Amino acid sequence: MQALKDRILQDGQNLGNGILKVDSFVNHQVDSVLMDACGREFARRFTDIGATKVLTAEISGIAPALMTAFHLNLPVVYARKTKPITMPDTVLLTLAPSHTKGVMTELIVSPEYLADGERVLVIDDFLASGSTIMGLIRLAQTAGATIVGIGALIEKLFEGGRAVLAPLKVPIESLVCIKSMEGDEIVFCD
Amino acid sequence: MQALKDRILQDGQNLGNGILKVDSFVNHQVDSVLMDACGREFARRFTDIGATKVLTAEISGIAPALMTAFHLNLPVVYARKTKPITMPDTVLLTLAPSHTKGVMTELIVSPEYLADGERVLVIDDFLASGSTIMGLIRLAQTAGATIVGIGALIEKLFEGGRAVLAPLKVPIESLVCIKSMEGDEIVFCD
Repeated sequence: MQALKDRILQDGQNLGNGILKVDSFVNHQVDSVLMDACGREFARRFTDIGATKVLTAEISGIAPALMTAFHLNLPVVYARKTKPITMPDTVLLTLAPSHTKGVMTELIVSPEYLADGERVLVIDDFLASGSTIMGLIRLAQTAGATIVGIGALIEKLFEGGRAVLAPLKVPIESLVCIKSMEGDEIVFCD
Repeated sequence: MQALKDRILQDGQNLGNGILKVDSFVNHQVDSVLMDACGREFARRFTDIGATKVLTAEISGIAPALMTAFHLNLPVVYARKTKPITMPDTVLLTLAPSHTKGVMTELIVSPEYLADGERVLVIDDFLASGSTIMGLIRLAQTAGATIVGIGALIEKLFEGGRAVLAPLKVPIESLVCIKSMEGDEIVFCD
């Protein structure tokens, strides 16, 4: 998606060690108009998969997932990292390694909102190693739901997440794909 | 706002101790179409305040703030509760008591995205005691920004937040106002 790619070229920062800082338009400050356009593009790409729900992980996944859900006229569920007091005692919980924090993070979904028979589209900000997205997929599958698509704003091809997700045999869409991040450079897939 | 009020009557749960569970459409699962309508309504009410940025707190504030920002054609910044590695060493940080967790929570904003001269509209899911919103206001004021409006999806009048915020002398808008929550009842302001 050209608008997102242009914005990464303009405002993204390669911090080294494969870390791309997009805090000025995705991760801390959000460009609401660009995010709406990203949601619209995901909705276009996933219009035919018959999703009944969008699933993401707090915190950075919420903005793209919400906009995608809006353009598909679907509810969105965001997995929590801590269990709030409003959640029932028995929950769906899995552990996923946090890429940028170096620790294991809990991903928690209430069984109230992820049910047997749902057709789930997973949306996140980054597809890197795929570990967060795989965590969401485990939660959905444990609930008896079916994964019907996976979307990420930015894919880091060099971290191998696509290969991890490929056995699911569902459409995997990234709006921008980054092939490598050597030195100060950000090299896009094509 | 009637649509939000109707949804609270239909799906909200009074858990006692003043806790209103709206996890099925605001706080865990989000009704994206309703949230868009809420954002549109905030944008209508705040169209004339000359805001340059929307400010909220992760996690539950993100959805209403993003939709409001979109309809005002503004960026939105969400204060983080932990400092990610992409954030500079020196940040704006304040402490706010977490209503539902009983502990103090950090609210952190990078000075990169909250600058001197900004005109800030604060949006959150709940206006209860006002402590989270006051934390956001301290961050903005420390950055040299001006608060120009405050909006919350749901105000709990009985928790007194409006009185805490009144000295700021800015418009305070809630889309739904709850007067009391005795027993199983949810009593709206009018």
